[in-house]
Amino acid sequence: MSNTTIKILAKELNLSVASVSKALRDSHEISKETKEKVLALAQKLNYVPNPYASSLRKRKSKTIAVVLPEVADSFFSLAINGIESVAQDKGYHVLIYLTHESFAREEAILNEFKSGRVDGILISVSDETNTSDHIKQVIASGKPVVFFDRVCDDVEAAKITTDDMESSYQATHHLVMNGCRKIAYLYTSKNLSINDKRMEGYKKALSDSGLKINEDFIVLCEGNTAGNFEIIRNLLKNKNRPDGIIACVEKLTTPIYLACHDLKLAIPDKIKVISFTNLQAALILSPPLTTVTQPAFEMGKTAAMVLFKALEKNNYNLKKETIVIPSQLTIRSTTKKDLGV
Amino acid sequence: MSNTTIKILAKELNLSVASVSKALRDSHEISKETKEKVLALAQKLNYVPNPYASSLRKRKSKTIAVVLPEVADSFFSLAINGIESVAQDKGYHVLIYLTHESFAREEAILNEFKSGRVDGILISVSDETNTSDHIKQVIASGKPVVFFDRVCDDVEAAKITTDDMESSYQATHHLVMNGCRKIAYLYTSKNLSINDKRMEGYKKALSDSGLKINEDFIVLCEGNTAGNFEIIRNLLKNKNRPDGIIACVEKLTTPIYLACHDLKLAIPDKIKVISFTNLQAALILSPPLTTVTQPAFEMGKTAAMVLFKALEKNNYNLKKETIVIPSQLTIRSTTKKDLGV
Repeated sequence: MSNTTIKILAKELNLSVASVSKALRDSHEISKETKEKVLALAQKLNYVPNPYASSLRKRKSKTIAVVLPEVADSFFSLAINGIESVAQDKGYHVLIYLTHESFAREEAILNEFKSGRVDGILISVSDETNTSDHIKQVIASGKPVVFFDRVCDDVEAAKITTDDMESSYQATHHLVMNGCRKIAYLYTSKNLSINDKRMEGYKKALSDSGLKINEDFIVLCEGNTAGNFEIIRNLLKNKNRPDGIIACVEKLTTPIYLACHDLKLAIPDKIKVISFTNLQAALILSPPLTTVTQPAFEMGKTAAMVLFKALEKNNYNLKKETIVIPSQLTIRSTTKKDLGV
Repeated sequence: MSNTTIKILAKELNLSVASVSKALRDSHEISKETKEKVLALAQKLNYVPNPYASSLRKRKSKTIAVVLPEVADSFFSLAINGIESVAQDKGYHVLIYLTHESFAREEAILNEFKSGRVDGILISVSDETNTSDHIKQVIASGKPVVFFDRVCDDVEAAKITTDDMESSYQATHHLVMNGCRKIAYLYTSKNLSINDKRMEGYKKALSDSGLKINEDFIVLCEGNTAGNFEIIRNLLKNKNRPDGIIACVEKLTTPIYLACHDLKLAIPDKIKVISFTNLQAALILSPPLTTVTQPAFEMGKTAAMVLFKALEKNNYNLKKETIVIPSQLTIRSTTKKDLGV
């Protein structure tokens, strides 16, 4: 392991320790030539800064945390790419923490942050999160926090979201226009405000079209793939079954298709389907899937840019930043109109 | 922010600072009753340990790093779940670092570890990685390192892999048995040893079946989806086109299907397809995809268990641990035999 210290670099270059330290931090007080000399020697002697010592001194870890439910979802994996595109430019490390939709884990992770492991936090809360004290405490400890996608409405913080209500309204309306009269809404969380908004859009579109809301068609699917397959199969094997489905999360897509195949309900002739998903394979499903496509990369990128505003300027008021980036309805075969042939 | 220190807890409970500290670390020297009293008060007073101070003292961060190319791939997202299932039991944080297939980023991340940010490292190297000094240096600095899936053959460290040669042999053999005579092999990296092994299995299966190896059918696809679509389309629009494809990574699946659809090459009648992937949606593709299904969760879990052996026992010899967990060929419609109807 390298034992090169700033002192050794300073002695070798005949500079003060403070100047070497400033050069390594790319300070504007140091000339370009000096910086280049310092960096060249640091590289040659394999100098490694001690993150703990330097963190204690500067109270900066040059690290941001991304807290999110899972990565096995194309929305989140694209959002991470957006976040990293910004962090890399800024020379920051990104640490990804997964809650696996557990409130207890989310709380334990946030608790860790109060003591200074990271400089700022980007968070999309878990399915189970219905209280926000753990987040308020982190903000109170002085750390900037930016929500993306799944927010806590009662916390004053920057929030980067998409137009959940409007996009769900548009999806439902599209199904109605293409002939659906009995549209089911499948969701996975009772607590998330994005779900409330999506359900509101669904209900409003039904009302505006003069259709009745049937509570039996609003179905909570909180299991694994096999469990959700059974729930959806039960919904669809009824005589009075839905003729359209809106799935509010990506992971319901596979069980919906499997249940339709199993019951020999042809999509889109017998039943039409829309999912909220950024799945690339939506294009090659049998049949290709109509999706509510969220601006995942842009949301991650914007959330990171807002966080860096707070990290770079003291007293920057993060609470003002509420940005809504619209989703798009991408129409493919699963909602094709019955031509009555 | 809470200002509760161990001193305050000790005074309040009439215990020594050392006893409180040991109780908080769950030491066997402290009775269960005392531990419960300490934990109850710590919780009540909102005690937060300072990770930097305690890291400097113990040289333990209670954190492991997972370094991998990307999360937008079902193999890696499942492997992460396997790793976290173990780390959670051990009370460790898991930090996920993404290299986005860049050697420079991988090197910068590993360089960071030499100075003590994490206790141990799980790594699956980038596509670009064809040298291993950055990993050897981390090992030399005293950090345990466990490779999973994508390894560096010249580094002496624990390695958890799957049977890449055998599973590729089996996939190729399956295509031959189902009538393919001109099988293409699509890959994305010239550097990875897992690719060498998969290509070796492919070539050996061809030879063993008395088929010639056609170098024009071994195609490097290192672009994005649109670029790979063009490469694959060019391969398939030739008169002397392949009648079977083995894709060695998940992300080639969508461009393969799109190119076949575009050229009106029916799968499996005109061309048969197998991908290395854990994609859940493989079941509902048009048509359902035959896959080499890797034991992703088990590989992640095993890699983490091996790492914890090294973290828990000093002088544990990690180099001995080389574990190969077999993959499975999951046969679906894309390789269905032509019945000559």
